[in-house]
Amino acid sequence: MRESRTTLRVRFGETDMAGIVFYPNFFAYFDIATQALFAGGPVDVPAQMKAGGFGFPIAESGAKFLAPLSYDDEITIVSRVADLRTRSLRVEHAVYRGELLCATGFEARVHGRKKADGSGVEVTPIPPALVSWLGDPVA
Amino acid sequence: MRESRTTLRVRFGETDMAGIVFYPNFFAYFDIATQALFAGGPVDVPAQMKAGGFGFPIAESGAKFLAPLSYDDEITIVSRVADLRTRSLRVEHAVYRGELLCATGFEARVHGRKKADGSGVEVTPIPPALVSWLGDPVA
Amino acid sequence: MRESRTTLRVRFGETDMAGIVFYPNFFAYFDIATQALFAGGPVDVPAQMKAGGFGFPIAESGAKFLAPLSYDDEITIVSRVADLRTRSLRVEHAVYRGELLCATGFEARVHGRKKADGSGVEVTPIPPALVSWLGDPVA
Amino acid sequence: MRESRTTLRVRFGETDMAGIVFYPNFFAYFDIATQALFAGGPVDVPAQMKAGGFGFPIAESGAKFLAPLSYDDEITIVSRVADLRTRSLRVEHAVYRGELLCATGFEARVHGRKKADGSGVEVTPIPPALVSWLGDPVA
Repeated sequence: MRESRTTLRVRFGETDMAGIVFYPNFFAYFDIATQALFAGGPVDVPAQMKAGGFGFPIAESGAKFLAPLSYDDEITIVSRVADLRTRSLRVEHAVYRGELLCATGFEARVHGRKKADGSGVEVTPIPPALVSWLGDPVA
Repeated sequence: MRESRTTLRVRFGETDMAGIVFYPNFFAYFDIATQALFAGGPVDVPAQMKAGGFGFPIAESGAKFLAPLSYDDEITIVSRVADLRTRSLRVEHAVYRGELLCATGFEARVHGRKKADGSGVEVTPIPPALVSWLGDPVA
Repeated sequence: MRESRTTLRVRFGETDMAGIVFYPNFFAYFDIATQALFAGGPVDVPAQMKAGGFGFPIAESGAKFLAPLSYDDEITIVSRVADLRTRSLRVEHAVYRGELLCATGFEARVHGRKKADGSGVEVTPIPPALVSWLGDPVA
Repeated sequence: MRESRTTLRVRFGETDMAGIVFYPNFFAYFDIATQALFAGGPVDVPAQMKAGGFGFPIAESGAKFLAPLSYDDEITIVSRVADLRTRSLRVEHAVYRGELLCATGFEARVHGRKKADGSGVEVTPIPPALVSWLGDPVA
């Protein structure tokens, strides 16, 4: 299944008064990394989302925090599609600072968009070309 | 074990272009709710943290997202200490909009502070008075 | 002209590694305070924005930072409409911690919404009922 | 005086429900760009800040918003030292999407750090080597 590596540098504003990255920002990093997974694929996901179309709303997420990150740290997020279904996928992430594994986590996302009445999410099949590109679909 | 209820209103800046709350902000809500758990207790945790002292760094966190939240929604986060040990605790959260359960989640936190050399977290016992106040400690 | 007072408590996640509120968050506070200005008025601005309708996109903003804010500080933002025109308004803000003035700032906003093609903002007249409610309009 | 160019891509989480970048994030971009100004200079500002030393707290900031930014836009922030004094500096920023000027702004910052008692900022001279590097100091 597809993998991506996203490198970024911790921003000053991502830290908190404890001197380390405020933990919800790890999930923001995961979000960036998952978007990066789609780059170069057959569907321009950002363009589609800008046009009010489909994206990948989150269903579940979790992380283990193994070592804190500090301002200006260069980190690499290794992300891979761990499960791929017709309407959902699971991405697993590992955050490294150099050789040090600092966090692991996952995101379970569906394919869909906000219902027009705001009541929830309309789930639809992932475009087959995107499924093929992301990896071998699991029944 | 101790419980808290935190009510807040979704801020415009907490939404994203999908028209709903950007999911890492749910973890920011959990963080707010956990801080609220300590309010009124025998240890002034914010004062201690401002003085460079101990706090409750995160070890693990996760959430399930059941219904999206929108700008200006009033939400209530029901949080309870689910496990309490000498050096760590687990808090479980449920996010409601009116009667509707929108998300559930948890945080596993240790008691400690960033090591002076930035290499990690120094874990120490939770002050006994705080343990007593938070609930009956589990072996 | 209309004024509002917004009271909130500084969140842990709004601080940075310098131990104080990360300065862009003062503008997030201004945004909250301006939204509060509209509360109770003749137009439900949040509902209208959720429906894809008009809001008040920013045209210019600025702030002077007089004293830092820390985690758990209770602050009051005093906001008043300082200039009101048919298609725009200016709001002035003052941020207090107790008696101490910690920051002053302003926002100049237009009435409008994002153009469908994303190329910019479509500016339209503020609904007359809202103008009347906000204060005496200036030519 | 010294100039820098910082290129970044708008993150999904930096947008709001209006479909464009939430305006306080422009100031977060300015903060990133100013930090980039110091890169390669004679003082390792991030390292110094991590060690609890001096940085450049904000005194005043402002921006004009000329065109909205959207998710996945690649932007360049052109930043230059516009005024340089012994204890403060002013940086001017211009944000471009391709050839289009989307925002202009400035930051006035002092050299200092938070006072140990949290009452305010201790202002100190900018290290002479850094002043020299940043440009010709203005009396």
